[in-house]
Amino acid sequence: MFISMFGRMAARGALNTVKTPILSQSLKRVAATSPSMRSFVSTKLIFNQQKQNVLESIKSELKIEKEGLSDLSESPFKKFLEDSGFNVVETPGKNEAQIVKKSEDGETVHVNFDVAQVANLPYDSALAENLKDEVNEVNEEPTDPEEEDFDSLGDNFANVNVVITKSDDSALSFELLLNLQEGSFYVDSVTPFKSSKQALDESAEAEISRELVYHGPPFSNLDEELQESLESYLESRGITEELAAFIGSYSEFKENNEYVSWLENMDTFFKK
Amino acid sequence: MFISMFGRMAARGALNTVKTPILSQSLKRVAATSPSMRSFVSTKLIFNQQKQNVLESIKSELKIEKEGLSDLSESPFKKFLEDSGFNVVETPGKNEAQIVKKSEDGETVHVNFDVAQVANLPYDSALAENLKDEVNEVNEEPTDPEEEDFDSLGDNFANVNVVITKSDDSALSFELLLNLQEGSFYVDSVTPFKSSKQALDESAEAEISRELVYHGPPFSNLDEELQESLESYLESRGITEELAAFIGSYSEFKENNEYVSWLENMDTFFKK
Amino acid sequence: MFISMFGRMAARGALNTVKTPILSQSLKRVAATSPSMRSFVSTKLIFNQQKQNVLESIKSELKIEKEGLSDLSESPFKKFLEDSGFNVVETPGKNEAQIVKKSEDGETVHVNFDVAQVANLPYDSALAENLKDEVNEVNEEPTDPEEEDFDSLGDNFANVNVVITKSDDSALSFELLLNLQEGSFYVDSVTPFKSSKQALDESAEAEISRELVYHGPPFSNLDEELQESLESYLESRGITEELAAFIGSYSEFKENNEYVSWLENMDTFFKK
Repeated sequence: MFISMFGRMAARGALNTVKTPILSQSLKRVAATSPSMRSFVSTKLIFNQQKQNVLESIKSELKIEKEGLSDLSESPFKKFLEDSGFNVVETPGKNEAQIVKKSEDGETVHVNFDVAQVANLPYDSALAENLKDEVNEVNEEPTDPEEEDFDSLGDNFANVNVVITKSDDSALSFELLLNLQEGSFYVDSVTPFKSSKQALDESAEAEISRELVYHGPPFSNLDEELQESLESYLESRGITEELAAFIGSYSEFKENNEYVSWLENMDTFFKK
Repeated sequence: MFISMFGRMAARGALNTVKTPILSQSLKRVAATSPSMRSFVSTKLIFNQQKQNVLESIKSELKIEKEGLSDLSESPFKKFLEDSGFNVVETPGKNEAQIVKKSEDGETVHVNFDVAQVANLPYDSALAENLKDEVNEVNEEPTDPEEEDFDSLGDNFANVNVVITKSDDSALSFELLLNLQEGSFYVDSVTPFKSSKQALDESAEAEISRELVYHGPPFSNLDEELQESLESYLESRGITEELAAFIGSYSEFKENNEYVSWLENMDTFFKK
Repeated sequence: MFISMFGRMAARGALNTVKTPILSQSLKRVAATSPSMRSFVSTKLIFNQQKQNVLESIKSELKIEKEGLSDLSESPFKKFLEDSGFNVVETPGKNEAQIVKKSEDGETVHVNFDVAQVANLPYDSALAENLKDEVNEVNEEPTDPEEEDFDSLGDNFANVNVVITKSDDSALSFELLLNLQEGSFYVDSVTPFKSSKQALDESAEAEISRELVYHGPPFSNLDEELQESLESYLESRGITEELAAFIGSYSEFKENNEYVSWLENMDTFFKK
């Protein structure tokens, strides 16, 4: 007798081989509501009219947005760039922002983040205040935060990639999670690379190669002293509370600029 | 004094750097049941016998399926293709279906969807009837649907990509979510591209490039008038309730054809 | 009158177009705790001191790990490799492990798995014992396992890919899920390929091509006899309880070796 190694699925309708759609919880919530009513008559006239309607909405939005556009040179984060030595690498049309800092030793610190991800983090200013109070009043017994608070904080993370390259082209890549509300970073993994290209190249082949590489143990499984020394090392290279604040405000700035470019590109498409 | 920017994880076993397996909820549910018993003796004879057993099961399935196969020309969606002006682009062996419609203005509408994803959506006909009633009887106070209903509806979405290209090769790409039960679409994002190749190319490099592009704000954050005009624009280009129904029935049709080809390819592998 | 096909989202802040961060549940849980205090003075001295501190932690870890390192030739899974005919394909620096077995018929069985994923599966020895009892005492009424048990088992799956190639270069690829605790496999999908390259190539283009291919129906939707014959076929090709145990112990072994290499690469980076 041999006990089969193959378990069997109870429900025959299980969808393992099938892609699950990309959609948000909030979308699910509204799915059962009845769609609104709108009248519609299909003619050639309306075929062009619909284009015209989109164009008018875009032009009206563009007018509002352009009046409100701020300049990088007068922005609140200009001071951070001057003080920290980081420079912005322009990435027009992309979600990804890059800032770079070179030291005298030939070391370069690259910081990459997704401005759409950061700009759309739910920021709860009341909760942020509360957290600061907790930090300042450490002697006070902390009140038990509700499940909901944890969840809203859980949504409050963004991925930040830090790559430190040396003059001999070797590189060390840190995958971090930024909690914008706390202004704090969590180290997820640390991976050494033989070359800066292996760590930074954005081609599809390079992305796949990086995915196959061993990324070290889960950071929290590392020896506690090694964890702490790596965190202090990151701090000494400029991964600070000030950087966290900059990532927040610069993401708002770039996301808004990308939105205006997006409106202009929409305008170009619809006016033809 | 300096408050460290680095949070620390409480549980040392947190698996952040580790890939989570791809598996369905229903699989999890059955994992604790004991596997069934089966006898097994390992010999050369059985080595070939196992191949033979698979082959017989495949041949029996193929016989049943081939008898039931329907033809595209006599299918229920033939009328939709004739009326709408959309043409099917054959994609044998692929999950992805493509339909294309050219207008007199040199505009082309491309609609792409995953037939395995659509064909495996859980379709609850009772719930669908209920939804139609709700739409027709809008004056009636809607009953509060249970959590479970929302969840089953949540599973009922499929991704549909619509790309509209112009004679100058510029393109506009819409990521939509289809609720097959409601027969309705939700706009997820709208992205203008300089060329049709950028919007439609399926190479790995093109996929990665598209992922890095700014996709506009979350659609529901857009000015309401712009949302409505874009939805009406899509309707005027053929993204209608009839298209939703077609996507459902054509996905069933193509998925079944792919299943028969899959059985034939299995047969070829096992009979050698 | 025409009922609009476009549903509208209630919450304007829905983040459909935005990437959700990659983070674990356990990370979310700790996010609200206040960060620990640490003093910090930024000077050039400290810039180099931080490097030195990391280096010392690494050297201390390396010393401990190198003393504990085991050799493949004296490992507990050496017997499995000898008995089964599988050979290890060395993949230094990669998460992926590969073992290969050639038969007299010109058939080759390739088994691939992610050692970091397997090595970080939560293994609950008490639960494993319990499961074995359930299998042996099948007449006993099974007690209703709690939700929590299901969840911990749900985390206990790892992806295993089995590709069987023939002398004519045709290939059959099985996506399996391994439950290490049970020592059992679940078939997720079965896909025939024209060439071994299509099934095994790890380039980005090949990965994307494979994703677009029809992978057969959800395995649990297949005719029950076909399911059983394919499972027996896999067993006859060496996908057995012994292989499951090997995957567990070899993953621990390789993950540990990769960890030591990772420490050495970290050492190289920080001592420069």
